[in-house]
Amino acid sequence: MNAPYYVPPLEDMRFLLEEVFDLSGVFGQPPYEEISFDIARAVLDEGGRFAAEVLGPVNARGDAVGAQFVDGEVRTAPGFIDAYRQYRDGGWVGLDLPPEYGGQGLPLVIQAGMAEMVTGSCMAFSMLPLMGRAAARLLIGHAEAALRDTVVPRLAAGEWTATICISEPQAGSDVGRTATRATPRDDGSWSLSGTKIFITFGDHDLAPQIIHMALARTPGAPVGTRGLSLFIVPKFDFAADGALGARNPAIVTSIEHKMGLKASPTCVLNFDGARGFMVGGEGNGLKTMFDMVNVMRLEAGIHGLGVGGAALAKALTYVTERLQGGNADAPPVPLVDHADIRRMIYTMRSRIEAMRAMMFETALQLDLAVTAGSAAGRATAREQAQWLLPIGKAFFTATGFEVANLAVQCFGGYGYIAEAGVEQYVRDLRVASIYEGTNGIQAFDLVVRKLLNDEGRRYGEFVARIRRDLEQHAARPDLLDIRSALADGLARLERVSAAYRALPRGQRRAAEAGAAAFLAMTGRVTSAWMWLRMAAAATGGSALHRRKRELAAFYASYLMPELLALEAQAMPGAARVDGLDAETLVSYG
Amino acid sequence: MNAPYYVPPLEDMRFLLEEVFDLSGVFGQPPYEEISFDIARAVLDEGGRFAAEVLGPVNARGDAVGAQFVDGEVRTAPGFIDAYRQYRDGGWVGLDLPPEYGGQGLPLVIQAGMAEMVTGSCMAFSMLPLMGRAAARLLIGHAEAALRDTVVPRLAAGEWTATICISEPQAGSDVGRTATRATPRDDGSWSLSGTKIFITFGDHDLAPQIIHMALARTPGAPVGTRGLSLFIVPKFDFAADGALGARNPAIVTSIEHKMGLKASPTCVLNFDGARGFMVGGEGNGLKTMFDMVNVMRLEAGIHGLGVGGAALAKALTYVTERLQGGNADAPPVPLVDHADIRRMIYTMRSRIEAMRAMMFETALQLDLAVTAGSAAGRATAREQAQWLLPIGKAFFTATGFEVANLAVQCFGGYGYIAEAGVEQYVRDLRVASIYEGTNGIQAFDLVVRKLLNDEGRRYGEFVARIRRDLEQHAARPDLLDIRSALADGLARLERVSAAYRALPRGQRRAAEAGAAAFLAMTGRVTSAWMWLRMAAAATGGSALHRRKRELAAFYASYLMPELLALEAQAMPGAARVDGLDAETLVSYG
Repeated sequence: MNAPYYVPPLEDMRFLLEEVFDLSGVFGQPPYEEISFDIARAVLDEGGRFAAEVLGPVNARGDAVGAQFVDGEVRTAPGFIDAYRQYRDGGWVGLDLPPEYGGQGLPLVIQAGMAEMVTGSCMAFSMLPLMGRAAARLLIGHAEAALRDTVVPRLAAGEWTATICISEPQAGSDVGRTATRATPRDDGSWSLSGTKIFITFGDHDLAPQIIHMALARTPGAPVGTRGLSLFIVPKFDFAADGALGARNPAIVTSIEHKMGLKASPTCVLNFDGARGFMVGGEGNGLKTMFDMVNVMRLEAGIHGLGVGGAALAKALTYVTERLQGGNADAPPVPLVDHADIRRMIYTMRSRIEAMRAMMFETALQLDLAVTAGSAAGRATAREQAQWLLPIGKAFFTATGFEVANLAVQCFGGYGYIAEAGVEQYVRDLRVASIYEGTNGIQAFDLVVRKLLNDEGRRYGEFVARIRRDLEQHAARPDLLDIRSALADGLARLERVSAAYRALPRGQRRAAEAGAAAFLAMTGRVTSAWMWLRMAAAATGGSALHRRKRELAAFYASYLMPELLALEAQAMPGAARVDGLDAETLVSYG
Repeated sequence: MNAPYYVPPLEDMRFLLEEVFDLSGVFGQPPYEEISFDIARAVLDEGGRFAAEVLGPVNARGDAVGAQFVDGEVRTAPGFIDAYRQYRDGGWVGLDLPPEYGGQGLPLVIQAGMAEMVTGSCMAFSMLPLMGRAAARLLIGHAEAALRDTVVPRLAAGEWTATICISEPQAGSDVGRTATRATPRDDGSWSLSGTKIFITFGDHDLAPQIIHMALARTPGAPVGTRGLSLFIVPKFDFAADGALGARNPAIVTSIEHKMGLKASPTCVLNFDGARGFMVGGEGNGLKTMFDMVNVMRLEAGIHGLGVGGAALAKALTYVTERLQGGNADAPPVPLVDHADIRRMIYTMRSRIEAMRAMMFETALQLDLAVTAGSAAGRATAREQAQWLLPIGKAFFTATGFEVANLAVQCFGGYGYIAEAGVEQYVRDLRVASIYEGTNGIQAFDLVVRKLLNDEGRRYGEFVARIRRDLEQHAARPDLLDIRSALADGLARLERVSAAYRALPRGQRRAAEAGAAAFLAMTGRVTSAWMWLRMAAAATGGSALHRRKRELAAFYASYLMPELLALEAQAMPGAARVDGLDAETLVSYG
């Protein structure tokens, strides 16, 4: 069995972009006047080839060898130097960045498709260019012109790379307790001292310069997040022409030994009076950083889709080629003939393909937030993206992990062996439910900030859009199953959100305890919405169209019933978590 | 933070054995005349100390270094030789084996408690003594006297060890396609040739002799499982006095590189005309082997409980000591103050403690199958154990894996780092849903063999026992929540089982497709049944009793709603898995 390293889902992407979504508000509109379906197809085809031929082959060895910390410096895994050079030279880093900074100027719907394939073929590799791209976006919006014009084109070209430095030993999800200090220097720059942890690609041998984007506290700043400012801290001093100078005391002191994602070095980074430059103004650090965090949050979700999709593809090959069972006096049959294997394949496929549609939907809203013809249209699109981002981050990473585990299960005993190349997906993906804001933080964000604190505007628009699609397809008997399942799921979501909004302000803890289940509901309702739209478009006789109709029906009949349990769990009062004092709750022995 | 390697759940075990279960049918009854609560307590206390002090400390290093294959032989991980010597000398291997063979003669309820602690403190280690014990039980029942009297006492003492050899490259779950051949020799022994894979501790340096228990096909035997016979194939020839002779050509040729369980060597074992001795008669191989498989199946389930429980214990320490969040101008609060963390802790605890009760319930039925005063009583107990075994194997391993993942989530970013000692649990436990019969095979066994093929006798008795307990506690208002949830869950299970039994014989595939959900239902209904019994006994004011009552209420309000989804998924027709031909289903790109 010689399974390919990675199978890019180009056919499915083409179906989504060309038959399901309406991209007329983006393609051909400023600043995307030149973008067409032909260009989208050419870029994704080439990106898929790159993922399959360049990134896929370095994935397993990167896991086996890992990044190494040698003599105070990080050496990346075998093949990474060459793969990164090709990635950089191919212009992939700045795919969605503006041409005036050296980017390719493509909309996010295309960038997102590429992100899925980069992540799926080599998740560890994907971490690096993501940060450069996200930092460039932040700097375009917030940096002073001189700094911006030196740094951004180099990030966009991949000549320099970037990191995001938030976590500290005592400040993980609790960013407000950041202790790294920044004191002003006479020349207008700042001097940073403190220790940052979990810094992805905090050092490496792929590019000469690294731009650390770091939160720190200025003298006399208030406690909490309001006291934080954002700084760029370069590995080396640099001149306006990009020439590198002295080594800045921003030093990686160790890298972590992790469950997976071993080719992505996770560093402890020590600032010892390191020179930094403030970006976005004093006290605006967290707000400014969110321009980077939001780009990364979308892609952290895509990790779940990409890696889960890669695991699915390997399982599809295996269940076809592996022969087991059937009558003892006849040849054995392929695994895919067995009902329970089919149940797993249908589950994996219908989850993955719904997430792929959700990814494009989210990217499309982010694009429309730029291209829509009216300010109101742009605001609505931006708010819809804000609503979908925490769902995508948490639901994709949890679901991708489930899919990767089902893929291992399809392989049986071989799935547990490294050589089969499928258990790595489980180990790599496990962290995605933790980083870029844990899935618990995402659920809190969705329920407390997005549902309860904005008078339900984003949520209301989300529901209204689904209702419009339900009405649009009301006359189609072929869509009855998925329509009914979606309508039922939406009604359940409405009941829970109404219950949350009816909670007195002092009793919001009941919504916090139910938030994880509420987020899981939104992920499944959105998935069903996507299946309605996919099934509505899949009216032809092709294998793809037939498969879409069957998977939509399966999603409706087998997976949407999960809403029954989740509604009950999300309802205030179901998660009775405060009946025991802490000591009684954790006493064990 | 210096968390202990392992915290034995002795207090909870004592509560279950002394306050919840009625052990009067076992303790004091032949052959357990000498067994009392005092003995049970002394053995488990000493076992807990052993697990915490001897086995716990070798677990993480065993994972980091792993078993090694050097010069054609397996070297176990650091510390394993000494730990095994102490385990053997402590008499732990033969805890439940009859005294006439050198065992300690204890009932399975005590052995099971010890198994949880051995597994939880070092799952990789636990694999080895398990097989010796299981092989000894098989040989006592089926081997000729001379063979039995030489081999069994040495297995019981841990002087020799055993393996179970079923899988071959082309025969995993499909045992009937076993190709290893056995041809008779003139001296009454047999000559085996073939390759066995996934052989746990197929070689090691912990004992001088290894007894392989292997399935092979005799000349002219029919196809399928009916053509298989069971053989013992020793690593070395041996005399009646146990003196070892020539090396038998039963050679380990490699070991696997696995996701976890690295200190448990998984071997490829080659028989090249190896001398073997038939046990249990020609053609009875699979039936005979099931005496070993059933012992292992119970303990494979216990792996889920043991490792999940170990992960829970580490999380309980961490959420108490780790400070994050709260008002920015006040000191940070322990993680356990946060609603979503509490939701995870309540979920983990209420799942683990229900499984611990299920473990004792299953072991008790196995004990009663020996000690019950009437043949009918013994038969009923045996059938109840047969019903519970596939549930325990699949539900415990799946649930333990979920709990281990929740523990990682409680740790946040640190959970992904090897040093925290919690991600290993996820990697180790992943295989438990695959080995000893995949969880899909267990679900098939439960639904097709145990529910549909025996006229529902085992199932009917299971339901009747739950109903008796529901009635017994009908007058207790303090048990209303858990009683109602259990009654509701049981009604759902009854609806699905009735639907399955109403299926015409040709449409049983609908039950096969629903089997995974059906098994998940039975696991949750049994958990709720255990919670009813625990809550009924926990009427005091101690922390343990208060916690039991709260966890029962949480299980009822938050976890039992999962039955709503599972009922819908298990119902015939929900898992519509046959609408697509194989090619259309697996086509991807």
